[in-house]
Amino acid sequence: MQNAIYAQSGGVTSVINASACGVITACRENADKIGTLYAAENGILGVLNEQLIDTAHESMENIKKLRHTPGGAFGSCRYKLKSLGQNRLEYERLIEVFKAYNIGYFFYNGGNDSADTCLKVSQIADELGYPIKAVHIPKTVDNDLVVTDNCPGFGSVAKYIATSICEAGFDLESMSLTSTKVFILEVMGRNAGWIAASSGLASNNKAAAPHIILFPEITFDEDLFVAKVDSTVKQYGYCVIAVSEGIKDKKGDLLSASQQVTDDFGHKQLGGVAPLIAGIVKKRLNLKYHWAVADYLQRSARHLSSKTDVEHAYLVGHTGVKLALNGHNAIMPYIKRISQNPYLWDIDYAPLTEIANKEKYMPRDFISEDGFHITNKCREYLLPLIQGEEFPPFVNGLPDYVRLKKHKVEPKLAPFGTSA
Amino acid sequence: MQNAIYAQSGGVTSVINASACGVITACRENADKIGTLYAAENGILGVLNEQLIDTAHESMENIKKLRHTPGGAFGSCRYKLKSLGQNRLEYERLIEVFKAYNIGYFFYNGGNDSADTCLKVSQIADELGYPIKAVHIPKTVDNDLVVTDNCPGFGSVAKYIATSICEAGFDLESMSLTSTKVFILEVMGRNAGWIAASSGLASNNKAAAPHIILFPEITFDEDLFVAKVDSTVKQYGYCVIAVSEGIKDKKGDLLSASQQVTDDFGHKQLGGVAPLIAGIVKKRLNLKYHWAVADYLQRSARHLSSKTDVEHAYLVGHTGVKLALNGHNAIMPYIKRISQNPYLWDIDYAPLTEIANKEKYMPRDFISEDGFHITNKCREYLLPLIQGEEFPPFVNGLPDYVRLKKHKVEPKLAPFGTSA
Repeated sequence: MQNAIYAQSGGVTSVINASACGVITACRENADKIGTLYAAENGILGVLNEQLIDTAHESMENIKKLRHTPGGAFGSCRYKLKSLGQNRLEYERLIEVFKAYNIGYFFYNGGNDSADTCLKVSQIADELGYPIKAVHIPKTVDNDLVVTDNCPGFGSVAKYIATSICEAGFDLESMSLTSTKVFILEVMGRNAGWIAASSGLASNNKAAAPHIILFPEITFDEDLFVAKVDSTVKQYGYCVIAVSEGIKDKKGDLLSASQQVTDDFGHKQLGGVAPLIAGIVKKRLNLKYHWAVADYLQRSARHLSSKTDVEHAYLVGHTGVKLALNGHNAIMPYIKRISQNPYLWDIDYAPLTEIANKEKYMPRDFISEDGFHITNKCREYLLPLIQGEEFPPFVNGLPDYVRLKKHKVEPKLAPFGTSA
Repeated sequence: MQNAIYAQSGGVTSVINASACGVITACRENADKIGTLYAAENGILGVLNEQLIDTAHESMENIKKLRHTPGGAFGSCRYKLKSLGQNRLEYERLIEVFKAYNIGYFFYNGGNDSADTCLKVSQIADELGYPIKAVHIPKTVDNDLVVTDNCPGFGSVAKYIATSICEAGFDLESMSLTSTKVFILEVMGRNAGWIAASSGLASNNKAAAPHIILFPEITFDEDLFVAKVDSTVKQYGYCVIAVSEGIKDKKGDLLSASQQVTDDFGHKQLGGVAPLIAGIVKKRLNLKYHWAVADYLQRSARHLSSKTDVEHAYLVGHTGVKLALNGHNAIMPYIKRISQNPYLWDIDYAPLTEIANKEKYMPRDFISEDGFHITNKCREYLLPLIQGEEFPPFVNGLPDYVRLKKHKVEPKLAPFGTSA
C-alpha cells in the first residue's frame, strides 16, 4: 500500500480548501488502499524541501471546517519547475522524496502553471523509473483553464463581484444627484475577462449597475469609453463601471499603473487601473467619482461563496482521489455541464497534455457588440455558477475559519541545498 | 391630524433603509395620529423642490424588504442649508412646503451635517411661526456622532471590514513564502478611526491579521511604520495592514493622493492612500505587496450586515416616530449601552443642540501604546456591535433587494427657482 501527497499551488481561492477537504475525505474513505496522506507545505516547495504534514493528525471536525475556510490551509507557492534539461536536480529530488515516503499518488491543486508542474512531475517520474499517479485538481478564480466548463474558485468570485457591484449600484443611485456620479470597481483577471463579466449578472435591466464592463479581451478605446460614460450619466444620472486589471491599450500595453514588479513566472504584477480610469473620467467629463479595488478581498471572500462552486471544488478533490485509485495518471478531473435548464453537471476527466499551459478567454459572442457588456449567452453560462449560498458558521460575529495543527513529519533526507 | 416627511441625507449605509422601514412601519401603526407619510426625494432637496413621494403606495411587503436593502431608497443628498441670514429664501420655502402639505413631523435620517440641518429646520419653523416636530434619525458608517453609544450603519461596516481582513489574512498567510508579503486594505474614516479600529477584531491573537492599523487620530510616522512592517514580516512571514483614508503626516496634511475634489460641505474627497503606503513598503523594504480599497463596497455590503446594527437602525427609526408623537422636537433617538456582558441596550433620546456639528474620535485608550493596534477596551466596545447575521434573501444567486415604486405627488406650488 502506497502513500499520497497533496499540495496547493498558485493564487489561492475561497474554496481551494474545499478541494483539500474532498481529497482528505476521499483518502480517509479509502484507508484500505492509500496509506498516509501527506500535505506538502507551500506547494511543490514542501516536497523539494521535505516539509511534509501528516494529515492524519487533523480531526475530522477540522477537516470538515476546511470546506468553509478561505486561503490555502497548507500554504501555497508561486514556483515553477524548470525543464528537466535546465534543472535535473530538482526532479531527482522530487523522486528521492517520493521514494523515501513510498508515494504512489500526487495530487496537485492549482491553475494553469500548476497543471504544467503536475504533468512534468508525472513525466519525470516515469523517466526516472518511479512511476506515480499524478492528478491535477483544478482551481483558479480566473476561470481560464481549458476543457473544464468552469474552474472551482471562479463561481464564488463571480457571486461576490456581482453582489458587490449590485450593492454599490444601490449606493450610487441614491447619492448621484448631488454627489458621486461615476463608480469604478477594479476586478482581477489578467488576460481573461471572466471575473469582469460576472459583474454583469447584477444588471438584470439596462438601468441597473454595472453599466459598463471593460474586458482585457477588448482593446481600451478612451474616446468610445468616455462617450459611453457620458451617455450613461445623461440617461440614468450615474454610471457604474467594472474594469478588469488586465485591460490594454491599442499598442497592447497594460493600462495598469504598477507594472514594475514581475513574479517568478514572469507575470507582471497588476493593479491600480481603477484610479487611472477615474482620472480619465475626471479629466474628460469632470464628474465626481469613487473607485474601489477589490484585490484579494474578492478571491478570499468565503463569507459569500457560491454553494455550486463549493460543491464543484469539493468534488474535483474527492473524484481526483478516486481517479488515481482507478489507475489514472497525468489527468485532471473537470466539471462538465450536462444541461443548462435545469443546470446539471458531472465530473469527467481529461489528460493534462490537453490542459497545461493553455488559457481560455471570453468568447467574442459573450461580449456585447459595443464591447461594454455581456450578452445573454454569457449570462446563461455564468448564472448557474453563482447559485446557492453556503455561509460559513459565525462565532462571536466573525466567520469560524479553521487553522490546522499541521503536524510536521521529521525529515528523513539531507536538506536540499539548491532549491527555494 | 397632520402629515409627516421623511428624508435621507449624506452618505448612505447598508442599513439606512432599515431606519426608513422603522419610520414607515411606526407611521402605519399610528395611522390614527399621523396622516400621510411623504418621503422627500434626495433629502432636503426633495422638500425644497417639492419632490415628494407618497409612501402609502408602497406595499407592506416592499416596506419590509427595505430592512435588507442597501443604499438610500428615496435618494439622499449632500446639501447643507446655509444660515437663515445667508439664505432666508430656502427656509421660507421649507415652511411653505410644510404648510402646503400640512406637515407636523419631520424625520431626517443622517449624520453630523444632517443633525445640523434638522436642528435648523426645527428652529426656523419656530421662528417663522409654523412649529413642527423635527426628529433626527442617526446613521453614519463613521460612528462619529456624539451622545449615542454607536451609530447605525457602523456595526455592519465593522463586521464587513473585520471579516474581509480576516479572509485576506488567510489568503496572504498561504501565499507569503514565495509571493505577497504585505497586504494593505484602505478603509473609510475621514477624521475618526472607528472603521480602521474594527479591522482589529479579526486579530484574536497577535499572529492573526491585521498586524498594523493606521488611525487618523495617530500622526503617521514613516520610520516607525516601516520598522513595524519589517519586524512583523520577520516574525510572521507576512504583514496585513488596515489604513484609514484620513491618515495625516506630521504637518497635519492628508497622505491621500486625491485631494483635489471638494464636496458641498467643504470636505476634501479622499481615497488612494493604500497605493501610497504600498509604495513606501516597496521603496523602503522591497517587499512584494498587494492593496485593496474597499470604498463604497464597505458601506453598501448589506449581504454581511450585523444583525445588531440592523436592529439598532430599525429601532431608531421606529422610536423616532413615537418620540415625535409624544411631542418631542429637535431631538435624536440614540443607542444607549446598558450593560456590556451580556450586551444590553435601549433607545434613549437627546436634544440636537448637544449633537449637531460635533464629532466623536477614538479615545486614546482604545488605541495601543505604539499606535498601531486596538486595546482590549476598544475590542470590548466594538464586539457587541458586529454580533449576529441577518443575511438578505437570495434569488437566483443574488440578494433580493427592492426598488420602490416611488409614487410622486403632483406639485401644488410654483417651482422653487433658486435651489439645487
